[in-house]
Amino acid sequence: MNLSAASLQNRFISIRENKGFETFVILVILISAMVIGAKTYAIPPTLSRVFAILDIGITLFFLLEISIRIIAEQSLKRFFSKAWNVFDFIIVVASLIPVEDSEAALLGRLLRIFRVLRLISIIPELRVLLNAFVTAIPRMGYVSLLMFIIFYIYAAAGSMFFHTINPELWENITIAMLTLFRVATFEDWTDVMYETMAVYPLSWSYYLSFIFIVAFVFLNMMIGIVLETLQREHEQFARDTGEGEAGEVHNIETRTLQMDERLQRMEQMLAQISASQDAKKS
Amino acid sequence: MNLSAASLQNRFISIRENKGFETFVILVILISAMVIGAKTYAIPPTLSRVFAILDIGITLFFLLEISIRIIAEQSLKRFFSKAWNVFDFIIVVASLIPVEDSEAALLGRLLRIFRVLRLISIIPELRVLLNAFVTAIPRMGYVSLLMFIIFYIYAAAGSMFFHTINPELWENITIAMLTLFRVATFEDWTDVMYETMAVYPLSWSYYLSFIFIVAFVFLNMMIGIVLETLQREHEQFARDTGEGEAGEVHNIETRTLQMDERLQRMEQMLAQISASQDAKKS
Amino acid sequence: MNLSAASLQNRFISIRENKGFETFVILVILISAMVIGAKTYAIPPTLSRVFAILDIGITLFFLLEISIRIIAEQSLKRFFSKAWNVFDFIIVVASLIPVEDSEAALLGRLLRIFRVLRLISIIPELRVLLNAFVTAIPRMGYVSLLMFIIFYIYAAAGSMFFHTINPELWENITIAMLTLFRVATFEDWTDVMYETMAVYPLSWSYYLSFIFIVAFVFLNMMIGIVLETLQREHEQFARDTGEGEAGEVHNIETRTLQMDERLQRMEQMLAQISASQDAKKS
Amino acid sequence: MNLSAASLQNRFISIRENKGFETFVILVILISAMVIGAKTYAIPPTLSRVFAILDIGITLFFLLEISIRIIAEQSLKRFFSKAWNVFDFIIVVASLIPVEDSEAALLGRLLRIFRVLRLISIIPELRVLLNAFVTAIPRMGYVSLLMFIIFYIYAAAGSMFFHTINPELWENITIAMLTLFRVATFEDWTDVMYETMAVYPLSWSYYLSFIFIVAFVFLNMMIGIVLETLQREHEQFARDTGEGEAGEVHNIETRTLQMDERLQRMEQMLAQISASQDAKKS
Repeated sequence: MNLSAASLQNRFISIRENKGFETFVILVILISAMVIGAKTYAIPPTLSRVFAILDIGITLFFLLEISIRIIAEQSLKRFFSKAWNVFDFIIVVASLIPVEDSEAALLGRLLRIFRVLRLISIIPELRVLLNAFVTAIPRMGYVSLLMFIIFYIYAAAGSMFFHTINPELWENITIAMLTLFRVATFEDWTDVMYETMAVYPLSWSYYLSFIFIVAFVFLNMMIGIVLETLQREHEQFARDTGEGEAGEVHNIETRTLQMDERLQRMEQMLAQISASQDAKKS
Repeated sequence: MNLSAASLQNRFISIRENKGFETFVILVILISAMVIGAKTYAIPPTLSRVFAILDIGITLFFLLEISIRIIAEQSLKRFFSKAWNVFDFIIVVASLIPVEDSEAALLGRLLRIFRVLRLISIIPELRVLLNAFVTAIPRMGYVSLLMFIIFYIYAAAGSMFFHTINPELWENITIAMLTLFRVATFEDWTDVMYETMAVYPLSWSYYLSFIFIVAFVFLNMMIGIVLETLQREHEQFARDTGEGEAGEVHNIETRTLQMDERLQRMEQMLAQISASQDAKKS
Repeated sequence: MNLSAASLQNRFISIRENKGFETFVILVILISAMVIGAKTYAIPPTLSRVFAILDIGITLFFLLEISIRIIAEQSLKRFFSKAWNVFDFIIVVASLIPVEDSEAALLGRLLRIFRVLRLISIIPELRVLLNAFVTAIPRMGYVSLLMFIIFYIYAAAGSMFFHTINPELWENITIAMLTLFRVATFEDWTDVMYETMAVYPLSWSYYLSFIFIVAFVFLNMMIGIVLETLQREHEQFARDTGEGEAGEVHNIETRTLQMDERLQRMEQMLAQISASQDAKKS
Repeated sequence: MNLSAASLQNRFISIRENKGFETFVILVILISAMVIGAKTYAIPPTLSRVFAILDIGITLFFLLEISIRIIAEQSLKRFFSKAWNVFDFIIVVASLIPVEDSEAALLGRLLRIFRVLRLISIIPELRVLLNAFVTAIPRMGYVSLLMFIIFYIYAAAGSMFFHTINPELWENITIAMLTLFRVATFEDWTDVMYETMAVYPLSWSYYLSFIFIVAFVFLNMMIGIVLETLQREHEQFARDTGEGEAGEVHNIETRTLQMDERLQRMEQMLAQISASQDAKKS
């Protein structure tokens, strides 16, 4: 019995590693994505029923696929230690929620949409891209905090002065922050400004100072990302390969050190020879 | 007969290489472009007829010019092995389609517009620019795919929730993606948002998260292009010239290697001299 | 008496350095920020009174905290020699202005908002960010001056020609500059343009030239910031660490210099040995 | 007489070099700029007359100042060989045109505005900035040409298909290019698109392809400027200073070359010593 379990596991591992199986999984994800897209169109009831059956089939296949991967991994702990597996597991389990009930139907359909995200977890290049994004987030944290403080102060002041002018835009600090985000994207920001300038003629200074500060902080954030990425790439390159200019310079340094030591020994020897000759002569 | 064909070919080659001929071709392309532009204005019938004759003349000249280049190239296979020749050939042949028929007239006129593109194929600097663009496209592929997945998921969710609010913007996934592209360009995006916020007050999180994610991916894409271009330029520069810092470092490395070997030989010789002196002395 | 003052001072210094005290200050600032935000909502009178008491508490705490820091610093001169202390002092003193009077109430509330800025002065990472921004400002000065001159000239010309068309946008040079800033942010700039094109059909050249010039100067400004930041980072890195490529190159240079000197001495010695052998032989 | 002319010239040179005189000229330019700005406001007739007198005074002063500089330069040819002098001369002469006539008044006032540009010619830092801009223009030429070709083709196609839909936006190729520039700045571009999509449902592909191509070419242009600026700065730095990493590497290379030659001589000498010893021994 134990033996057959082990042989089953080996078979599952070989399935998991199979290139054809991977391609098939990608295909199922693509079909799933297309079904999601097609459902947003007005479709005849017949096609709708076909989609419902297809949906069940896809759900079952995803369940099967994740089961194979869990068993192939041998232990649950090892399986869930990889973030991407947790990601896949949540997406698959979430889409098991039944969609019959009209109330929860919308949520069920929404969860099905996230299946498209499995494309990211299955294509290695996209996984690398997403990893890069995730690692960049914390470093940007303090700049984001600074940006938030700026928004908060301007929103508090804006809400305080302008909320009687147009409550829809300045009613409270949350709405004021949304309005300021709109101003930061330059979306009809002059309409917002002209409205308050009718009451406070100098309020243009509020908007202009906000735009300049936000633009400046944003610019610094961008430059920060570029610099960090450049540096990281550079370091990785230097670490990976001993070749290239940096590698050659390092080689030269160790070599000149050896040469210098050798020269010291040679100089000593020469001095001895010279001394012994002088001794002979005299 | 064969001789005269060969002499004709040589003559065609000399025509093709002729700087004056090239200038004349550029001139004809410019005239062709100007005729295309002029036709968009309301023009008197007399001028219209002049343009029609000019058009035939330009078409014939392009046909003649490409014939000369084909014959000068000696073999059709060699001619069509260059992408730019295929490009020119398609443009010239496409404009041979008659424009008399009122139905096809619009298509014929549209094809004539592409003649302006011949400016790119004939000016080497523009050809270099276009080549650079084409080589940059595949590398951006995975980022574009990621961007598409993000748009697709948001469009599916948007269409699902908002299509009853405004079918014109959210009717199906295609229209929703167009609406999201509009949001990504900040074009009246608050109008789209306020409309859905009237029904779902928290829908601002949908738009803000979308804008942040798209902006972040786009930023990374831009940085990716910059980094890649920088690296490519740097490598090319290093390959082309043995000069410059990288070249010098490489020279130094090979030279120090030779010096080290020479020093080893010298140390050995010195050791022998020293040993033989010691032997004599004792 | 003097002794007890000194011991009080030492106690204050230990309070100031206390990590728990710092965390508590940050907490009070955050509560203060939240109270400011909450006040922008319509709140029941009971909560309003709670906030009023909280406000007095926060004000007194800030007063206490700054007093501790002043006393701990030992001399007023030393305390005010740090820009961040002056910054904190102004914010604390400004919020002492009573807000009872309905006239000054708005100003008092506005000054309280700036308390949120104390987050920047208390979190070291944000302080570093703000310092970086402040140091970048003067360098950008001449580009800003150039930008201002461009705006001024275009605004003068715009006001001269267009003020009869739409006084709201072009009445005088100040309003015209605001309109031009709007054009520079692409906010409904075509509406502005179409309006003047109805009178001056060629006025599109005014807007297009303005947009191109401003975009170009802005681009140069951005590149200037990037280049400067890169250079500064690079220099700092080179100064901080003797390691890295630049450090290694420097090491190699000094070492090869020593080796060269050693080789000169050795050559001389060899020449002597050779000469003495020749002398012996003959 | 000749002597007094020379002494006059020397006096003029000393005036020109005088720091106080330069400051006074800047002051007059600033006053001139302020008068220009003030005139755009509704001013009482009394002030208007003061401005008219001030204007004459400024014009005369500028005339005097340029005369001093011409005489101080000794020859007209040498004076006009500097582009900045020509620039100043044109501005000064242009503002001599009388503004009495109501017809030419607007032109005269417009020409006076350009006096503000003299700020650029008199402040060296701004002159450097403008020089940098001017030198960057030709390099961007081919990218601009490519951009123009793209606009031209799209405008021709747009005008052909859409001019019956909205003649105001697509009447002819010039107006269509202006509309496309508007689309490129994302200014109400969806309004333009929705209008044509009502007739040609697939016309979104026209706008999206245009936006992608233009954005891509623009991005390349920006990167091109950045790369070029970086390279230029780098080269200049390397040329100016023999120091820095590049300089050190160059030093190392020449030094190792000398060391290698010295080592070759030493090896030869050692070989001779060794040979002569062997000869003695045997």
